[in-house]
Amino acid sequence: MVMTQRIAVLGATGSIGDSTLSILAAHPHDYDVYALSGYQRLDKLLALCQQFEPTRVCVPSKDVDSFAKRLCDVGLAIDVVGGAAGLIEIATDPQVDTVVAAIVGAAGLPSTLVAARAGKRILLANKEALVMAGEVMIAAVKAHNATLLPIDSEHNAIFQCLPVSIQQNNSQIHQVSHGVRRLWLTASGGPFLQQSFAQMQKAGVAQAVKHPNWSMGQKISVDSATMMNKGLELIEACHLFDLPEDKIKVVIHPQSIIHSMVEYSDGSFLAQLGSPDMKTPIAHALSYPNRIDSGSQPLDLFALNDLEFIKPDLQKFACLRLARQAMQAGTQSTIVLNAANEVAVAAFLAEQIRLTDIADINEQALTQVAVPSLDASADIEDILAIDDKARRHTHDIIAKMT
Amino acid sequence: MVMTQRIAVLGATGSIGDSTLSILAAHPHDYDVYALSGYQRLDKLLALCQQFEPTRVCVPSKDVDSFAKRLCDVGLAIDVVGGAAGLIEIATDPQVDTVVAAIVGAAGLPSTLVAARAGKRILLANKEALVMAGEVMIAAVKAHNATLLPIDSEHNAIFQCLPVSIQQNNSQIHQVSHGVRRLWLTASGGPFLQQSFAQMQKAGVAQAVKHPNWSMGQKISVDSATMMNKGLELIEACHLFDLPEDKIKVVIHPQSIIHSMVEYSDGSFLAQLGSPDMKTPIAHALSYPNRIDSGSQPLDLFALNDLEFIKPDLQKFACLRLARQAMQAGTQSTIVLNAANEVAVAAFLAEQIRLTDIADINEQALTQVAVPSLDASADIEDILAIDDKARRHTHDIIAKMT
Repeated sequence: MVMTQRIAVLGATGSIGDSTLSILAAHPHDYDVYALSGYQRLDKLLALCQQFEPTRVCVPSKDVDSFAKRLCDVGLAIDVVGGAAGLIEIATDPQVDTVVAAIVGAAGLPSTLVAARAGKRILLANKEALVMAGEVMIAAVKAHNATLLPIDSEHNAIFQCLPVSIQQNNSQIHQVSHGVRRLWLTASGGPFLQQSFAQMQKAGVAQAVKHPNWSMGQKISVDSATMMNKGLELIEACHLFDLPEDKIKVVIHPQSIIHSMVEYSDGSFLAQLGSPDMKTPIAHALSYPNRIDSGSQPLDLFALNDLEFIKPDLQKFACLRLARQAMQAGTQSTIVLNAANEVAVAAFLAEQIRLTDIADINEQALTQVAVPSLDASADIEDILAIDDKARRHTHDIIAKMT
Repeated sequence: MVMTQRIAVLGATGSIGDSTLSILAAHPHDYDVYALSGYQRLDKLLALCQQFEPTRVCVPSKDVDSFAKRLCDVGLAIDVVGGAAGLIEIATDPQVDTVVAAIVGAAGLPSTLVAARAGKRILLANKEALVMAGEVMIAAVKAHNATLLPIDSEHNAIFQCLPVSIQQNNSQIHQVSHGVRRLWLTASGGPFLQQSFAQMQKAGVAQAVKHPNWSMGQKISVDSATMMNKGLELIEACHLFDLPEDKIKVVIHPQSIIHSMVEYSDGSFLAQLGSPDMKTPIAHALSYPNRIDSGSQPLDLFALNDLEFIKPDLQKFACLRLARQAMQAGTQSTIVLNAANEVAVAAFLAEQIRLTDIADINEQALTQVAVPSLDASADIEDILAIDDKARRHTHDIIAKMT
């Protein structure tokens, strides 16, 4: 007897949503698509409602009535909820077993946090939940016996390579006493790996968003070019796996075949390899501790060649150094770094600043924005206040520069 | 409270013995060296007795009295047992928790089998136990609740990458239903990887035993040159992990950094990487399910480059094809292949035949030696009778050739 897992996909119209739903569609007996949410692409959301016939759907507040009408027009009786409150309603719905937290940015934070407090199984793609609220989020997971399963390819790879005792206890078991020496996050190195700082300085938007291995949105592509993305992942990994930043190394592996590694005290490195396809980590987390077919293109080992491993240049990729610095300082600083970086990346995409200015702006924000220390008792308002202050200050920094 | 594990190291003076004892010496509170055995290097065995002060030691029957006297002369009161009976006595000694089965060749088979029947934890380095008696050995492990932990680097790597439910049940849990799609045994490709069949045909002993990555004995170095070694490992893996040979692939990975892999249904490959140092897999198996420091040189990821993956050429490395063929035919055939290969390798080392003749001789033996089918109810005498018949026939084949 297999229990059907009822799933809420928050952020259903994005790329993680696509991958998740393609897996769910292939395993209709194991998973029930109970709820979906969308924000900008409502036509696509409507089509998904027609395909999966969820029980509930969440759209922006202003669109609730019109979307309900559109559903009605196509003959679907689906409960429509709206906005942040609607996301929270879905994330805590007693009918929901598993929440796929795939909303991008700070908008995904509250629903992810309440899902933890409701003791859900959370498939985590939303970086901000841990970068902005690491301690709060982990404390909620522990207190309410939720399950946190990372679906970022790197964190999922590490999860797969950890001892099962640690996997099953949300990293509450001490890593080092279980033989974990350190973690290795792999990074592609982005489009400027082989170029000089001077070349990177002159790079336009088109060059910066051209990721060699993964197809991703613009923001994350720029983060990959500056390696800020790996910095944010490092912060996530510290919280997810309960390790200080100096136990988590970054290695550039341009082929993106090894998705990350765990190094053990006996000299073993366990690694997860695969095609660069998000369906693999998502399928892993959906079916954990079992395995299902993900529909991803199988990795052709014989087609692999010349796998490389390179030490990151922290002068060229200063954002990675800043992430370590912010993690050491505390969550108030990782919030500032994340906020400053979002503002700076937007300015770069709007062609107001150079790519290499992003790290300078981030560093100025980290140094200049005075913020109170945060701990696990912080609430979302404290966090969003710091986020807001950092964003406003970063706009000032950019205004002075341009 | 940590229990001290009492260990018997059978084959203590060989290279697996060296690695094992260096780990045991570094962890005196966790492990008690209860018994040692040696065969040819009795001076070394005496020194080990002085270092570890075991309770019992096994030497060849003819050496029992003289070795007892030498122990007495250095002031050691150690119980000396002799020969095959002595090995069996140690392997089944109620004081022994763990048997390190590191005797090379058919001589290690009886003691490994009785250790399984005595329900011991067995750290298996002896290939012949599975190549010559796979079904018998696995049946004994299951019936007597023994634990079989492979310390060959490839099999240990696969073990580390398997689901914990399978690890903990001696592969009695169905691999495929637990998401295992196939196993990938990595092979260095040996010294002739980049050379033609014609060059291999002309190779002398010195060239054939020059292994690029591991330092090993002459027999196993020749097996590595012909890839018979990978063929024997494939047969072992079929028994250890309860999979048919077509679920176990071989990939040449000349750098020997990835020690083997498990491919899962979701597209994940889990791999174990490390320096080519036997101390890592031995430490893993000794401390399983925990981890201890192995004393191996840590792998320097940043020094790695150009990891390659190549499909084996089954014409040049015909022994690998023969191993699959023998595995399909049954254990009676893997016994013949193993015996023929030992005789052929000895003839090559004695410069009576060419390196490339080994595969031809093995193939002739497989085709010509008529043997009865074996199953899990076979006894050692049945197995040794087939082994003996195959050896005699192989000598005849070689005599006709030379």
